Amino acid sequence: MHIQVIPVEGLPIIHPGDLLTEMICERVTFDDGDILCLASSVYSKARGFIRKQDEIVASAEAVRIAQKTHEDPRFVQAILDETTDVILEDPFILSETVTGHVGVRAGVDHSNIEDGMIILLPPDPMGAAAGLRDEIARITGKEVRVIITDTCGRSFRRGQTGVAIGWSGMTAIRDFRGDHDLFGHVLEITEEAVVDEVAGFANFIMGESNNGVPAVVFRNCARWTGHDNLHFSRDEDIIRKALCKK
Amino acid sequence: MHIQVIPVEGLPIIHPGDLLTEMICERVTFDDGDILCLASSVYSKARGFIRKQDEIVASAEAVRIAQKTHEDPRFVQAILDETTDVILEDPFILSETVTGHVGVRAGVDHSNIEDGMIILLPPDPMGAAAGLRDEIARITGKEVRVIITDTCGRSFRRGQTGVAIGWSGMTAIRDFRGDHDLFGHVLEITEEAVVDEVAGFANFIMGESNNGVPAVVFRNCARWTGHDNLHFSRDEDIIRKALCKK
Repeated sequence: MHIQVIPVEGLPIIHPGDLLTEMICERVTFDDGDILCLASSVYSKARGFIRKQDEIVASAEAVRIAQKTHEDPRFVQAILDETTDVILEDPFILSETVTGHVGVRAGVDHSNIEDGMIILLPPDPMGAAAGLRDEIARITGKEVRVIITDTCGRSFRRGQTGVAIGWSGMTAIRDFRGDHDLFGHVLEITEEAVVDEVAGFANFIMGESNNGVPAVVFRNCARWTGHDNLHFSRDEDIIRKALCKK
Repeated sequence: MHIQVIPVEGLPIIHPGDLLTEMICERVTFDDGDILCLASSVYSKARGFIRKQDEIVASAEAVRIAQKTHEDPRFVQAILDETTDVILEDPFILSETVTGHVGVRAGVDHSNIEDGMIILLPPDPMGAAAGLRDEIARITGKEVRVIITDTCGRSFRRGQTGVAIGWSGMTAIRDFRGDHDLFGHVLEITEEAVVDEVAGFANFIMGESNNGVPAVVFRNCARWTGHDNLHFSRDEDIIRKALCKK
């Protein structure tokens, strides 16, 4: 069966308080088992996870780092407020958030929002995905799987790609442990980060800039089994340990 | 227009000398502009980029590293033969290949091949993609874009995802430089690694293990403009520099 990938067209610019789930359900007819990918920026705007930059007071730490990154100290403060561990301070802040997600500027952004405003990542992206799933079930009667996406850079390779920061109705990892290859060997590579593979293609469809397609629906995708242990712990992460020795 | 993602079903196990492009064209009806994603392992098997492990003589270097990785020294030698720079020796070999690609074990694998055999990455994956594109045009008269995929791990996040190692008919990076967001700001994040986003979703459809779907066709994907500078140079890559200081 072919997979269909359906951009949710025609969503207006989202503001705090907008009934985002209703607005999506008005613009796409869901089937049971669909996967909805939603850009975290749009979710955060609808739910009010935004800040006014001129209401932020920068700490001495934010001022110090801002001199290295050439950013507004209040913007850096917003990043530090979302951060549980700073991995790199410059040339850009790379940090861990409370959910275990590691990203540039802790996912804090001032694109696609009014001047002087800052968008934060949803504080509970797993809860956000589960909540959307419940709301869609209530509105449409359909069982829809949900991924909340963000964009991140990578090591070794240039360019951003979409990744999953929250998900519901699926596991993050497809786990092949115990499976065999075409020749009957037990597989060595046993864990595939399928939520990130789906989120990445959703990001391709969303585009960036002014395309304005923050939601994408995947139809006829298989289900899988696995686990949700997507983030390396500090001790497991060889690259992070090397960065922190810097 | 909806995007369709079409697994190429029914390909048999591929052997050296098989007419892979013809076999794919017999199993899918291409449209102009389609993107074909093909697993590098299958391309390498068809073109004979494989080795017999017992014909490899391990160097002292391979023996030394194999003691740390608990692998066969001849397998490690096959990895070193594909490597231009070893970034990490253990717990797994992370190295750069002649194309600038950085991957675990230089992409050398002994899954999905007969016992005692090793699959290498195609030595010229860009040429491989261009060649497939030309062959498909000759066989079908259609202009098809091509991505050769491999799977890689990432920093900070567990699990493998599909990535592009060769591509033709597109640029690796979609470049938004000079574009504006919904509010007219010039975008800060300007480069999206779209070949990896497409390759990642292809990998999700391919599955691993014994699913046997090494080729996936994407229909109705937009074209984009950008550049092919996908691999960071050593000096640009903050994470690599940190690893090499270890």
